[in-house]
Amino acid sequence: MAKRFRHAAIVGKHQARGIRPLLEEIAEFVTGLGLDVSLELETAQNTGITAYEALSPDQLGANCDLAIVVGGDGTMLGFARQMARHAIPLVGINQGRLGFITDISIERFREALEPILVGDYEMEKRAVLEGAVWRDGECIFEGLALNDVVVSRGATSGMVELRVQVGEEFVANMRADGVIVASPTGSTAYSLSAGGPILHPSIAGWVLVPIASHALSNRPIVLPDQGGVLLEIVAGRDASVNFDMQSLASLLHGDRISVRRSEHQVCFLHPKGWSYYATLRRKLRWYEGVA
Amino acid sequence: MAKRFRHAAIVGKHQARGIRPLLEEIAEFVTGLGLDVSLELETAQNTGITAYEALSPDQLGANCDLAIVVGGDGTMLGFARQMARHAIPLVGINQGRLGFITDISIERFREALEPILVGDYEMEKRAVLEGAVWRDGECIFEGLALNDVVVSRGATSGMVELRVQVGEEFVANMRADGVIVASPTGSTAYSLSAGGPILHPSIAGWVLVPIASHALSNRPIVLPDQGGVLLEIVAGRDASVNFDMQSLASLLHGDRISVRRSEHQVCFLHPKGWSYYATLRRKLRWYEGVA
Amino acid sequence: MAKRFRHAAIVGKHQARGIRPLLEEIAEFVTGLGLDVSLELETAQNTGITAYEALSPDQLGANCDLAIVVGGDGTMLGFARQMARHAIPLVGINQGRLGFITDISIERFREALEPILVGDYEMEKRAVLEGAVWRDGECIFEGLALNDVVVSRGATSGMVELRVQVGEEFVANMRADGVIVASPTGSTAYSLSAGGPILHPSIAGWVLVPIASHALSNRPIVLPDQGGVLLEIVAGRDASVNFDMQSLASLLHGDRISVRRSEHQVCFLHPKGWSYYATLRRKLRWYEGVA
Amino acid sequence: MAKRFRHAAIVGKHQARGIRPLLEEIAEFVTGLGLDVSLELETAQNTGITAYEALSPDQLGANCDLAIVVGGDGTMLGFARQMARHAIPLVGINQGRLGFITDISIERFREALEPILVGDYEMEKRAVLEGAVWRDGECIFEGLALNDVVVSRGATSGMVELRVQVGEEFVANMRADGVIVASPTGSTAYSLSAGGPILHPSIAGWVLVPIASHALSNRPIVLPDQGGVLLEIVAGRDASVNFDMQSLASLLHGDRISVRRSEHQVCFLHPKGWSYYATLRRKLRWYEGVA
Repeated sequence: MAKRFRHAAIVGKHQARGIRPLLEEIAEFVTGLGLDVSLELETAQNTGITAYEALSPDQLGANCDLAIVVGGDGTMLGFARQMARHAIPLVGINQGRLGFITDISIERFREALEPILVGDYEMEKRAVLEGAVWRDGECIFEGLALNDVVVSRGATSGMVELRVQVGEEFVANMRADGVIVASPTGSTAYSLSAGGPILHPSIAGWVLVPIASHALSNRPIVLPDQGGVLLEIVAGRDASVNFDMQSLASLLHGDRISVRRSEHQVCFLHPKGWSYYATLRRKLRWYEGVA
Repeated sequence: MAKRFRHAAIVGKHQARGIRPLLEEIAEFVTGLGLDVSLELETAQNTGITAYEALSPDQLGANCDLAIVVGGDGTMLGFARQMARHAIPLVGINQGRLGFITDISIERFREALEPILVGDYEMEKRAVLEGAVWRDGECIFEGLALNDVVVSRGATSGMVELRVQVGEEFVANMRADGVIVASPTGSTAYSLSAGGPILHPSIAGWVLVPIASHALSNRPIVLPDQGGVLLEIVAGRDASVNFDMQSLASLLHGDRISVRRSEHQVCFLHPKGWSYYATLRRKLRWYEGVA
Repeated sequence: MAKRFRHAAIVGKHQARGIRPLLEEIAEFVTGLGLDVSLELETAQNTGITAYEALSPDQLGANCDLAIVVGGDGTMLGFARQMARHAIPLVGINQGRLGFITDISIERFREALEPILVGDYEMEKRAVLEGAVWRDGECIFEGLALNDVVVSRGATSGMVELRVQVGEEFVANMRADGVIVASPTGSTAYSLSAGGPILHPSIAGWVLVPIASHALSNRPIVLPDQGGVLLEIVAGRDASVNFDMQSLASLLHGDRISVRRSEHQVCFLHPKGWSYYATLRRKLRWYEGVA
Repeated sequence: MAKRFRHAAIVGKHQARGIRPLLEEIAEFVTGLGLDVSLELETAQNTGITAYEALSPDQLGANCDLAIVVGGDGTMLGFARQMARHAIPLVGINQGRLGFITDISIERFREALEPILVGDYEMEKRAVLEGAVWRDGECIFEGLALNDVVVSRGATSGMVELRVQVGEEFVANMRADGVIVASPTGSTAYSLSAGGPILHPSIAGWVLVPIASHALSNRPIVLPDQGGVLLEIVAGRDASVNFDMQSLASLLHGDRISVRRSEHQVCFLHPKGWSYYATLRRKLRWYEGVA
């Protein structure tokens, strides 16, 4: 619990306005606390900051023991996915409305960050999905996803029909706009919009959610994360698959999308006292009773 | 109530196996009851039946006082849309599992059809949607729909954002997989899968149903059919629109889809004693109590 | 459009703190504009205000041409129900968070009320439900409801089974926690929580919503308001019925609850420029796009 | 995997018609395979069968190594709950429509039962909920539940407000018709009707489902089964709690319902080749694709 960090990577959403002075401010603050700082390569190139060593994500993974991500949940998830193969923890500083994961506001980054850097934090591990697309026995696409793997119908196709298998067992054929396989992290994103439940991050499972299913009884189903899920395209033109937001279009009948738990995990750090349920309350505006 | 028909159009789902002898059997039966019979042109061409005059849909509309459609709900809705500008009633004979609209089975078409042809039937009128797509002030697409007008996100786009207006009033911006505007007829089709309610055909309204809406409070809303609905594409790449199944892809930001009630109606005939609720019970397997 | 009011009834939620000075302030303001003012009897008794004539709701209905209700939606709906048999319009001043109907805040009651009193307002009519409970052919309970009529299972009974009929037609037997018949006004209340759609107030219909139905296909259904709805208790101990919040418990097998459209309507006045959709946006926090 | 059973308990739904000859037939068949047979005491008393030793559930638990339950899922769950403290496995023979758990039909009980009795079966373990009601620091009610613990509003109360806590953490105050805490076994029962997801039996979690929640964002949430769930009555008259179907009414404000995982498990035996997903397909009529 009392790990003190020594070398921080800093990553920023480079399209964001006014990001340069902000990143410089954070970098100086972190340096001031005695840590080494490296910048993520694209962040450095896009902002023109040259005062710190610029490294690729893989180099950051090899050299740093912590990454500070400045942006929203989308920026965090994108970078976390790149870093999943390395074991370094991530902490998020949010410029806008606080997210599910990036919960430190710009305004109070100093008081939030300082205790974390000296080893006083809540750590939270999140499972990662590993997906692949198989055609004629060959893997034609693969990737990691922190939120979800989604198979969707083509734009002008009325539906996609998927044969769903879990481990070696046949589940059902689903005719729908698509099917989502969401991790606990993704259960509060697209899956929630499509009618899925919230999964606490410690649940060792996925939720499989059909989108606008023809059959009203094809309800969301929470599956153990040990066996893989296999989705085979049985009918419907021009289906596509998305692993988080990386997509492959023009799927063919017979293509199979496999999803299984990655051996990697992503590790987020939060200020002491952080609570998953408090985050849900804030994001979903849950009622807290009369004060 | 006691209209006796004189000239029947016959239309068949030409891809269906064994449709030719079936259509001949029906045509002979109808002729035998003293009616004139014309075949829909494509039906005649695809089946090779030459014993009856073959007419285009518009010619059928001008000459016949009844159309007999052999196929499922899809075939019926497609043909009904073509005939919406003519006022002739339609009756459906179903080869497979009975539909919401085509509810006379092949097996008993004689006893069901005979009373209808001599004027003994239940008549049911269904509203028709009239949709158009506007770009830079010009109409670039238009059409009729019996079921629904659907605007959908592009396959690799996370969502589409639509600015929704009813009559002159702003309703909301909806960020979702898409938005359905469904007639009562369409309320038991795609709209139901997306979480919409069932609308009794006599309701003078549409239901607007967001599909997998980001905001959980963007629930289905039943609107009067007097003012039009206007959906403007505000964000999202490559959205498309479908009027029943006729589609236009690659919509641009600023494109507007207008939906209003057509001056035309479609008129279906059913055997005496037909009940809308009985159809719902059968199709949705509703419980009828212990016999 | 240009009716000028002459005699206002004032009604207050008497349990509310600090209501007396507020009601006096409103009464003085209204008198100052040249209208006569009467107080609702219970309001007068509970607040001890004696400066104005105190009348029963029926007397108010006979003498006033407008009622000003101070409180939330609950207070308004309760009083509107009592006044439904009289034709006087109602306007709501809200002490707390604005409601679906009571949308004038205390802070700006003067500038909102003045134009309304001289005839410059938006008028909105709402349908009223008329319900009755029948046992062995006799009516044992009856009442009006602005929101909904709800039949619910007994607390220790697993479910209630209701035989549902619309007009003369059988719909289905529903086994559920209960069934709601909601007006457009009630469609944003309990019905929405149970999965029902929003009904625009101009829709001439009800929505029938089963609560936690055993059958997943027993979805909300929007019915024309012309035929009545009949719900017969078929199974389940100790069911109860609520007309808005007036309740009758211990229903027996064979009891029938009838719901039909009342000949009365309730009429609400809103400040000029009021919009139903703006109210939905505010109450349901709908997204309005980037400003 | 190859356990051969020696002493079977037999239990029947005694209200069922024609149960006596059926139980005798089963008992003879089991005896014929070389096992000892005891009858559950009430079953013996109600059917008048005297040819076998009659034992109380606890005595059956102490003496038998298998129980054969004749009835539906309700009968099985009731008996399984009584036997939860003993470790003996249960097998169900169903007289009517097959259930989620009781999946051997009367017609083929011989061929299904014989291999099971000699040790050839699929074994499935199901978690059990342990609930208690606390008032002023004292436990006033406790029990086990295989399906769910449900807190419900009183019949004439508009809602119940519950303060929900998981482990030591506050989740939210929920205002609703009630809240369900369902095990994976219960996830296909009441919880499904209220909008909950299906939980595979191997998921180490519960699902907490608010019923007709006032807040649309209070969605079902899947919780780890390690920490307990605590529900405190904050508002609402006359709430009640049910552990499966055992109920306690007239709960008071401040009463707390605790739910945690029991140390006991229930163990069901199924014929070789049994599949959980096949059961879902059959019960929920899922589509299996074109044969």
